[in-house]
Amino acid sequence: MTDGTRSGRTTSARGRRPGPTETREAILAAAREMFADKGYDGTSLRAIARAAGVDPALVHHFFGTKEGVFVEAMRFPVDPSVLLPQLLALPRERLGETIVRTFLRIWGDADRRAPLLAMLRSAMTNERAAAMMREFVSSALLGRAGAATGVPHLNIQAAVGQMIGVMILRYVLRVEPMASASEDELVELVAPTLQRYLG
Amino acid sequence: MTDGTRSGRTTSARGRRPGPTETREAILAAAREMFADKGYDGTSLRAIARAAGVDPALVHHFFGTKEGVFVEAMRFPVDPSVLLPQLLALPRERLGETIVRTFLRIWGDADRRAPLLAMLRSAMTNERAAAMMREFVSSALLGRAGAATGVPHLNIQAAVGQMIGVMILRYVLRVEPMASASEDELVELVAPTLQRYLG
Repeated sequence: MTDGTRSGRTTSARGRRPGPTETREAILAAAREMFADKGYDGTSLRAIARAAGVDPALVHHFFGTKEGVFVEAMRFPVDPSVLLPQLLALPRERLGETIVRTFLRIWGDADRRAPLLAMLRSAMTNERAAAMMREFVSSALLGRAGAATGVPHLNIQAAVGQMIGVMILRYVLRVEPMASASEDELVELVAPTLQRYLG
Repeated sequence: MTDGTRSGRTTSARGRRPGPTETREAILAAAREMFADKGYDGTSLRAIARAAGVDPALVHHFFGTKEGVFVEAMRFPVDPSVLLPQLLALPRERLGETIVRTFLRIWGDADRRAPLLAMLRSAMTNERAAAMMREFVSSALLGRAGAATGVPHLNIQAAVGQMIGVMILRYVLRVEPMASASEDELVELVAPTLQRYLG
């Protein structure tokens, strides 16, 4: 979609000032390339701006943080900087149920599931793709959740693992009865597991 | 490895009687093609024999059952008809720990993990590959385990989902501390979850 419109500089060289949509797309295209090439940790907001030929303030203006750029560039279906504070504000005993319902809402939507599956697929054969996803998950999700709650990272990962596995069985392999189980059935089945890990 | 040696009939037509290794490989190549094309449920041992141009008794002689052919043809890293009776013979309270250790042994071996990941990758974009895996998992694993134990299929799938997710985080994304956690740490963390689902 954005291929070939990567560099804002090229567009200006054509003598026309790029509009906000073109600039935004140029930043995202530059970001996708840098994340794939240097990983999440190896990419800075400043370096993305440089590659897109724009001022870093503009990247900040459009996307807030590096995390925000990543979420948009990779079409990551949820912004951890928005979701995590919501989860952390909940009474601890409602965490399990809310996480199950949140995963079901995101994965139940084919448009939001597709980019996740694409990333996971890449990570299965390509170490750079794996590194990018690992670094994003570690920095944006696990580190922050662990710091805010005091729950050990290993426990958070066991909980995330439970949800990833159930999502794969339900939405990728579509094994029955998992594929047709109701949201409430899955809450009853899986939420106590998450409570045990995160409680 | 076996490409181009698919049909026993072709080999005989060249005037040379195929040896047992060639026949075996021809059967496996025919089986791979049929499983991919017709799914697991849509493929019979007899049809595989026909496609390979051999007698069904020979397929039975080499591989026992359709399940045995599948395990060999897809390099599935474990034969459920061998593993399940071992698990079912255990005292129920040791099931969680044994399953965790079994998954770690299989996924910890890159050669056994590779074909599983390849199948999972295919299932993520290809509905036929997903169907093949779904049917095999349902018939060979879940159906049999459910029938023998009386544990609801949904519970068995929640347990399998827990293990698949943890394996992906540990061996594919290699997120820390999951990637470096010891076998005993993972048993302590995850076995109680499996016991809850399967107990």
